[in-house]
Amino acid sequence: MIILGLDPGLACTGWGVIRADGNRLGHVANGQIRTDAKAALSARLSLLYEGLGAVLDQHQPAAAAVEEVFVNENPQSTLKLGQARGVVLLSAARHGLVVGEYAPSLVKKAVVGTGGADKAQVHAMVSRLLPGVKIAGADAADALAVAITHAHHLASARALGSHAA
Amino acid sequence: MIILGLDPGLACTGWGVIRADGNRLGHVANGQIRTDAKAALSARLSLLYEGLGAVLDQHQPAAAAVEEVFVNENPQSTLKLGQARGVVLLSAARHGLVVGEYAPSLVKKAVVGTGGADKAQVHAMVSRLLPGVKIAGADAADALAVAITHAHHLASARALGSHAA
Repeated sequence: MIILGLDPGLACTGWGVIRADGNRLGHVANGQIRTDAKAALSARLSLLYEGLGAVLDQHQPAAAAVEEVFVNENPQSTLKLGQARGVVLLSAARHGLVVGEYAPSLVKKAVVGTGGADKAQVHAMVSRLLPGVKIAGADAADALAVAITHAHHLASARALGSHAA
Repeated sequence: MIILGLDPGLACTGWGVIRADGNRLGHVANGQIRTDAKAALSARLSLLYEGLGAVLDQHQPAAAAVEEVFVNENPQSTLKLGQARGVVLLSAARHGLVVGEYAPSLVKKAVVGTGGADKAQVHAMVSRLLPGVKIAGADAADALAVAITHAHHLASARALGSHAA
């Protein structure tokens, strides 16, 4: 099963595609979509939508996931993030995907084994879990971590005979 | 010139289409796109995108505008609004529209004549400025007010020989 992980942001959205066969994981592709802060907001959102559309068309994921959002930053940042996140979720939905959402602590727990892990530990484990991966940047690493979390979750759900995704 | 005004929201997005010939305004259509709070976020954003797409296809506006956002509400509301707003701006952008943004006080000033006008005054003036209009609801009224503001702004820009939109 091909799984897409997403780390939305207006300036930079990370994405990571992995292949999951039961508990075996493999890296497929990852990258970051950057938009120019000097461009109009609608143009930036368009670029993000088209960039993600290309990723979805190329890799045809069967599942997708994103991190839940912390909203304790400044409100202007939350609005920007929300606008990017809306476009990211829309893009996935229009490719027929329901997007799983995971709390950051759950992603850390799934990847490193503890909810209190720091970013460096998460990225190191992403590299170990996906041998040969060349990570495009911090946001792509986060996206791959979310994809791995979703793979674990789907495998557990299957093991339990549940149909929940 | 056909102008589209938008009042984005996840639960309800208002839209209003007017015709502007210099300083003469006329109502074309208005409405509200509602999404079910019990549906998945991505499904709600999809519905919003498709609803707006239908409005854009039908009325083919040459210009569009939206209110700037106040972000002093609670962060969770700001995130929701941001997600809806991102989809609304994307929808306009993908129909080739640059979306003008106006501060709420500027909309009140353009429609009523004073930046301190209340909602009821704005809605009453929208009805007077667009004779025969039947307004679908509060969000549609706000959307029409933004469209009127944009019409005034474009007319002033033309009068000044400016190319600013």
